[in-house]
Amino acid sequence: MDVIEVIVTKRDQGALSTEQIDWVIGAYTRGEVADEQMSSLAMAILLNGMDRREIADWTQAMIRTGERMDWSMLDRPTADKHSTGGVGDKITLPLAPLVAACGAYVPQLSGRGLGHTGGTLDKLESIPGWRASLSNEEMLSVLRSAGAVVCAAGSGLAPADKKLYALRDVTGTVESIPLIASSIMSKKIAEGTGSLVLDVKVGSGAFMKDVAHARELATTMVALGTDAGVRTVALLTAMDRPLGLAVGNALEVAESVEVLAGGGPSDVVELTVRLAREMLDAAGVSGRDPAEALKDGSAMDAWRRMISAQGGDPDGVLPRAAETMTISCPASGVLTRLDAYGVGLAAWRLGAGRARKEDPVSFGAGVMLHAKPGDLVREGQPLMTLHADETARFDRALAALEGAYEVGPASDPALLPLVIERVTA
Amino acid sequence: MDVIEVIVTKRDQGALSTEQIDWVIGAYTRGEVADEQMSSLAMAILLNGMDRREIADWTQAMIRTGERMDWSMLDRPTADKHSTGGVGDKITLPLAPLVAACGAYVPQLSGRGLGHTGGTLDKLESIPGWRASLSNEEMLSVLRSAGAVVCAAGSGLAPADKKLYALRDVTGTVESIPLIASSIMSKKIAEGTGSLVLDVKVGSGAFMKDVAHARELATTMVALGTDAGVRTVALLTAMDRPLGLAVGNALEVAESVEVLAGGGPSDVVELTVRLAREMLDAAGVSGRDPAEALKDGSAMDAWRRMISAQGGDPDGVLPRAAETMTISCPASGVLTRLDAYGVGLAAWRLGAGRARKEDPVSFGAGVMLHAKPGDLVREGQPLMTLHADETARFDRALAALEGAYEVGPASDPALLPLVIERVTA
Repeated sequence: MDVIEVIVTKRDQGALSTEQIDWVIGAYTRGEVADEQMSSLAMAILLNGMDRREIADWTQAMIRTGERMDWSMLDRPTADKHSTGGVGDKITLPLAPLVAACGAYVPQLSGRGLGHTGGTLDKLESIPGWRASLSNEEMLSVLRSAGAVVCAAGSGLAPADKKLYALRDVTGTVESIPLIASSIMSKKIAEGTGSLVLDVKVGSGAFMKDVAHARELATTMVALGTDAGVRTVALLTAMDRPLGLAVGNALEVAESVEVLAGGGPSDVVELTVRLAREMLDAAGVSGRDPAEALKDGSAMDAWRRMISAQGGDPDGVLPRAAETMTISCPASGVLTRLDAYGVGLAAWRLGAGRARKEDPVSFGAGVMLHAKPGDLVREGQPLMTLHADETARFDRALAALEGAYEVGPASDPALLPLVIERVTA
Repeated sequence: MDVIEVIVTKRDQGALSTEQIDWVIGAYTRGEVADEQMSSLAMAILLNGMDRREIADWTQAMIRTGERMDWSMLDRPTADKHSTGGVGDKITLPLAPLVAACGAYVPQLSGRGLGHTGGTLDKLESIPGWRASLSNEEMLSVLRSAGAVVCAAGSGLAPADKKLYALRDVTGTVESIPLIASSIMSKKIAEGTGSLVLDVKVGSGAFMKDVAHARELATTMVALGTDAGVRTVALLTAMDRPLGLAVGNALEVAESVEVLAGGGPSDVVELTVRLAREMLDAAGVSGRDPAEALKDGSAMDAWRRMISAQGGDPDGVLPRAAETMTISCPASGVLTRLDAYGVGLAAWRLGAGRARKEDPVSFGAGVMLHAKPGDLVREGQPLMTLHADETARFDRALAALEGAYEVGPASDPALLPLVIERVTA
């Protein structure tokens, strides 16, 4: 097999054969196809696309470069959720123990934040003692004792994806729906979950800015999961404004604990319960109502077991940033707009996110919102509080927030519905 | 400047700014932009194109990465020719001394063969003692004493092009008219010639298989030369069949010497004289008829001076291959087709060309034709003779020639005219 022939096939708008895809992914992972050849192919794929069969082959070829986990020894079905990433999206934290409390196992391999979107592992690591890295045996043991486990993917899972993702990141080839879908789904299928609910975010704070692109990504991923024997469903959900009131690692853990205690912001509660119902449906588990499990403390019990099993102290004091700065409302009226991207960028600059993969994050940094779009506000009332370890960070965060919110007379701001659409196979 | 921003601009069908182009070419040459980034950009350029201003900027940026030669100290105008490459295309050999004999200086930087097309330097190196590598001072001295010099481009000329060409070769990004045109023209403009005639080959043995693509390439290159102050004209010429009767290094030198002696195949003579007239016109030199200079020995005198000045012996015995094999005519009739690509591939496999840049060529290897398309042939009559250093090479050469020629009843085979079209600014 010749790599130039593979590149030229896609360049000239042909479909890659199953054999070509399997060979090029394997050879790239083994280092026999060079980075400059793979990036040229990735650009040709980005510009000329791949059909459903090619995307499925590409995904399966990436899975075959590593191990595939198997949870068939467990006595209950498995269910997982994946979010394409947003601002204030801490849903995994209350969701995983909630679904476990309702009777399905949740084996979730998660990632870290990059750019203006946070990462689940960064959030959980703000809990004193909590460990993200588990062996497969430890993962199984946490799953058995707590019903849910959230940890980092080992290097054995779809190594092709890891290498290709790093390459796409520096070659302008990230924004390809076939490549995004196969990247996400190769890891989720290799993770071995029996059912999967995809939360595809839409809006300024999300990767997909409009419903049409989000729908295309969701449809592609649902097809990939279904073809691989994973019961898969997707929701398109709003990311034009932040989710909840907390944006930042420890701040979001605290908000998640509020939800598990039966309180918390209504949008976080609503989306958590909706996703839990989808996961339980997909897993074929019925009998317990997730809303009830939040009220009666059983989700909180599962959370405490899950955190403890990974070395974390569920009663530990969460880190706080040393400095705060409050932004006041510029006028009285209705908060008509609070841009998710602006808030995410501000939190990132405050220290909640990282500029390079190697950088540490500040656990205490972030933004606490005191009002959400649609709320009535009064001039001078606190609108949000910035948290950072050094006051020097406030200026660039304020710049990110310039134009990110608006107070007006409108009583009905134009917002996306929290759940926009449901996509099934 | 950020390389991902440059890649994304072209990926999303934008035009690259002059600053972006200048920066990315310079940074790539300095090693600050990685191969995998440049190949991704090259694929985006191949698929989304560049406009005339971008191609001119790209060419100028490549020139600026190296030195630019200057012949303004000479007392006569300079003229050069560039061919996009073909099978049996030895025209430079008689042409350079012929134009010198008619009163223009010909400073030509040439290349080596790669693939099925031969390289001028490989051909000249079959002359005992002849040296391709000259310093700038030596080049000037040969030019002054012989009127013409054909030598290898030093590493100081458009180093960006050298690096980018090697990258495109292994990343499926060769077939882009903007990149081909800027690669050729960056070297020709940097070479410092005052006028330039482009011989753009069309047909199976050429890079451009059809007239439309060849015309686009010619038009692009003529515009680039003109914009850079070089008087540039292009001819589209036939490469559906080989040029002349000899294909192979020393075999083509012998044929060239025949032409310089006033003989030789009519198509080689016709194209040599036509290109000489175009070069003299472009250089603004008149008074001598090239056809006359072939007859009266003055072109031959210039050839002998040129070869001697570079250490070659114009009377030296040319290398001959140890083995020959003759292919006989399969039937009587008219030779209706003799495919340039098939013959070129056969010569390549006989040893006339190289598989990798580092490989040596066999000077004696190649194909001698005994008939050309349109000729009447008799069954059993020799059609061509294969020359190689080992008989083991004949089988694969014969395979290349399978289906490459046809004898039929047609008295008027469908051939491209030798000179198809003339392209000016």
